[in-house]
Amino acid sequence: MAKLPPLEPSKILKTHSSLQAKKIRFEVNHIELPIGIKADFGIIRHPGASIAVPITNDGRIVVLRQYRFAISRRILEFPAGTLEKNEEPLTSMQRELKEESGYEASKWDNLGVMTPCPGYSDEVIHIFLARDLKKLQTKPPGDADEDIEVLLMTKDELNQRISSREEALDGKTITAWYRACQLLNF
Amino acid sequence: MAKLPPLEPSKILKTHSSLQAKKIRFEVNHIELPIGIKADFGIIRHPGASIAVPITNDGRIVVLRQYRFAISRRILEFPAGTLEKNEEPLTSMQRELKEESGYEASKWDNLGVMTPCPGYSDEVIHIFLARDLKKLQTKPPGDADEDIEVLLMTKDELNQRISSREEALDGKTITAWYRACQLLNF
Repeated sequence: MAKLPPLEPSKILKTHSSLQAKKIRFEVNHIELPIGIKADFGIIRHPGASIAVPITNDGRIVVLRQYRFAISRRILEFPAGTLEKNEEPLTSMQRELKEESGYEASKWDNLGVMTPCPGYSDEVIHIFLARDLKKLQTKPPGDADEDIEVLLMTKDELNQRISSREEALDGKTITAWYRACQLLNF
Repeated sequence: MAKLPPLEPSKILKTHSSLQAKKIRFEVNHIELPIGIKADFGIIRHPGASIAVPITNDGRIVVLRQYRFAISRRILEFPAGTLEKNEEPLTSMQRELKEESGYEASKWDNLGVMTPCPGYSDEVIHIFLARDLKKLQTKPPGDADEDIEVLLMTKDELNQRISSREEALDGKTITAWYRACQLLNF
């Protein structure tokens, strides 16, 4: 799942309206699909993001419990962040890992990409495995609106949290975990 | 991952603007987060959706290769669909499975819920496992804008597609597959 299939763009015949909110923009476009159907569709234009599965040398996984206003809840997620303009996914992830978790990693593997919401968002998320972690003496300041608790779990605990129905995780987190398990033969 | 954690809504102080596109609406709101920060955020209001992992009695998994205008590509996905107004997730999924794949299932398991995009969408997707499949003589008509190819894979083929980097899958599909593997001890 590391590369995306060939591009096959739909024709945008007209942009009816659009709204910007921070780094994302919503557009309502009249488009022509490859099968020839013409209709209005809404789409989020997103700059892309990175996510990392951070694993300590003693095999514990760094997981965040993070408040998400869009779903009005706290959920378990791996460290992740939206790309800044012209920022490389790995550079972005190295910064976000420090800001969100207070760890830095010296061993990085690329686990490919995923699309969180292909029905209405062009967002592509780059997945990394982060190892050889070192806890920073001081956690650098992140975004002011972040509301995050840093947890450490074994792989069995994480699998159990996912299967137990005790806590919610999101799609990018489970996808990244699945890819990490494939690489690590967990 | 079957239930969601307790609701903890942010206070919407003002809705600056909103745009509707078919079943989804984008809003730009001035909100107050639980930690007291006030800021403008964009959010997709989504009616929710269902996804199913359909497995035939001889152990093959039904996967769709579907065109997605938002990412301008064809990706591998499980059958899924957006809920109609007041529609139960299972009822919706039973209809979508027939329309998208041409199969019907007589054994259904609930695998909980997932949030595809908690950073900017309130969408919640209900995950099901669909077994005891029967191929319909005639596939009922689906949405006119759907552009779908129906594939059958063994579990090893599907895992290999995900790890090989040959084809892209999306977050809800990998999450549903991960949950199905947990239930089936794959």
